[in-house]
Amino acid sequence: MSTVSDFAALESSIAPYLLRPDRTPKHQPGTYQPPYPSFSARFDERVGAVVMAYLGVQARDPADPALSRSLDDLRRRLAGEHAPDYWDRASYVDAAGFTNVISIAYWTDKAEFSAWFAADGESWACAERAGDGLGYFAELVWPTIERFETIFSANDRVEGVAGASQSMSGMIEEHAYWGSMRDRLPLAQTAPLYSSGAPKLVAEGPVRTVVLPQNACLIRSGQDLTDCGEVERDAYLGEVEPSLRAGMDFLRDAGRAIGCFDNRYLTVLDDNDQPTQRTFGMSWWRDLAALEDWAASHPTHVKIFGVAMRHLSSFGPDTRLRLYHEVSVPSAVEQRFVYVGCHDATGMLRAAL
Amino acid sequence: MSTVSDFAALESSIAPYLLRPDRTPKHQPGTYQPPYPSFSARFDERVGAVVMAYLGVQARDPADPALSRSLDDLRRRLAGEHAPDYWDRASYVDAAGFTNVISIAYWTDKAEFSAWFAADGESWACAERAGDGLGYFAELVWPTIERFETIFSANDRVEGVAGASQSMSGMIEEHAYWGSMRDRLPLAQTAPLYSSGAPKLVAEGPVRTVVLPQNACLIRSGQDLTDCGEVERDAYLGEVEPSLRAGMDFLRDAGRAIGCFDNRYLTVLDDNDQPTQRTFGMSWWRDLAALEDWAASHPTHVKIFGVAMRHLSSFGPDTRLRLYHEVSVPSAVEQRFVYVGCHDATGMLRAAL
Repeated sequence: MSTVSDFAALESSIAPYLLRPDRTPKHQPGTYQPPYPSFSARFDERVGAVVMAYLGVQARDPADPALSRSLDDLRRRLAGEHAPDYWDRASYVDAAGFTNVISIAYWTDKAEFSAWFAADGESWACAERAGDGLGYFAELVWPTIERFETIFSANDRVEGVAGASQSMSGMIEEHAYWGSMRDRLPLAQTAPLYSSGAPKLVAEGPVRTVVLPQNACLIRSGQDLTDCGEVERDAYLGEVEPSLRAGMDFLRDAGRAIGCFDNRYLTVLDDNDQPTQRTFGMSWWRDLAALEDWAASHPTHVKIFGVAMRHLSSFGPDTRLRLYHEVSVPSAVEQRFVYVGCHDATGMLRAAL
Repeated sequence: MSTVSDFAALESSIAPYLLRPDRTPKHQPGTYQPPYPSFSARFDERVGAVVMAYLGVQARDPADPALSRSLDDLRRRLAGEHAPDYWDRASYVDAAGFTNVISIAYWTDKAEFSAWFAADGESWACAERAGDGLGYFAELVWPTIERFETIFSANDRVEGVAGASQSMSGMIEEHAYWGSMRDRLPLAQTAPLYSSGAPKLVAEGPVRTVVLPQNACLIRSGQDLTDCGEVERDAYLGEVEPSLRAGMDFLRDAGRAIGCFDNRYLTVLDDNDQPTQRTFGMSWWRDLAALEDWAASHPTHVKIFGVAMRHLSSFGPDTRLRLYHEVSVPSAVEQRFVYVGCHDATGMLRAAL
């Protein structure tokens, strides 16, 4: 972690064309000096919304040949016409012991996505897939550009939605304080982003669709150890990872009581579907406030925050650990969650059942 | 700590006549259930501003007879015509080893205060007092009703500014989450409360006057052990107080770097100027955001928060520890800080020098 020494070099996490003249971040712009640098992804001004498609397959047996066939098939679909701007793939074993592999694809052009979805997406999780022994799901959100924010500890490598971005910002102001997530979210300049209602489930034959309330909140929050030396990797795995895992397990198993619909702790896979040294948690929340409350107050996250900060300060500028997150607050009409053949504790099914 | 079981019984910390229809607390009103009850002081709707007068005397030797004469004199002045609605007295030994006794008086009628001040207050810290071997100061703020907020863990005893209030609210919504202090402050409904500029010092002969920037922030935050049994008192003194003291010392000695102008950790005195089992910290901050950042992130306060929460949960409904705070954000023209004969590290002098 290097120190942010040059005040003048800071910019808002919110891109200039999205800045509201009357915005009121917690710290008056130009007066706050974060203790270390962070960056946000920048998108072309013509991008109105970004489609984030979480395309999952679920197998009881990770060695099931149908699973790898299905993954190969999806890889081909994602390389065809109307392909996403960026996609990656990650896997985890859920609490029921099932292996879930999720391919996460990002489109900055909704029309391109629609064309892809009609040709290759709709059939990913549809009635015809039922009964082949695997589960399939498509968790789709397309928040407008005002409805998501990103933060990265380094600006020389992309991850997640930044893969579909145009560039990285300079060093941003709104980070390293409680409340900064909200200050980075363009729509929070003018709206409190309250949630309303509860998840609803509609079943049509084998296809189960969940509709989340307005302003539900998704976070994908990851870490990349690829460039860490052995000493830093050991320190991370010994000191940081166990606390992170405990927090992830808590959210998965007991998060409902604090507004967390579901949590997954995934390992990114490489082009050959082999595990990398990149991991991330992704969780769905009732609203941004529930996520904020967990992050700022719950013992499991306070622990994660503490050990991560200790790690970063002990390695200082020598750290090669890369951290990032992306947070989206889609509106009620910017989402679609479809499950076919999945067990009842899968994703938003559990929240709606 | 009893549980807040009745949602419907909750009300806003902001009195109904001060509520803005477009306010946006972090949690949508009516949807958040705090883990334990808290209350706010309510004032008569005709109260436009509350004068808070911190009238201090400083002595190198606590046994100096001039000190007790001076305290008796002030006690008489505060019992005379145009007396405050409420006042109390507290003392501490500062980092330079001087004993400081501060009488804190509250008026809900500015005209009454002005009359009192002309007759009995102006002469408390004036040129004529210089040279009698003691230091005198008057730290005066008169925030409008929109510019301060209060919180109490119990509603059956008053402390501080609540002594001048009309009543206590019912159980409030806006507490027990990070950001709730701001949500309780009426003016924060419509203003970000940014600070501007730095403390300025004007010396006129022996009288030194400090002017703080717009939206500087004062917190008085206290604890009352009077009703605690021996077991709870021992637990507090053994587990909580050392962390509180460490935080208070940190703010006093090193707070400047994080926007804390000064901190005092005082013991309330009884009618005979003898120490009670009530203590409080009072500190001045560059702005509300600096106080929020310390409270939510700094290791010293995270420690205080942790041990206090542990204490409260271990005693549960049997706790007799009472906690409260009052936070004011006066405007640039709602304050006056005057020092005569005080050493340079006194109060706002240190911030301005």
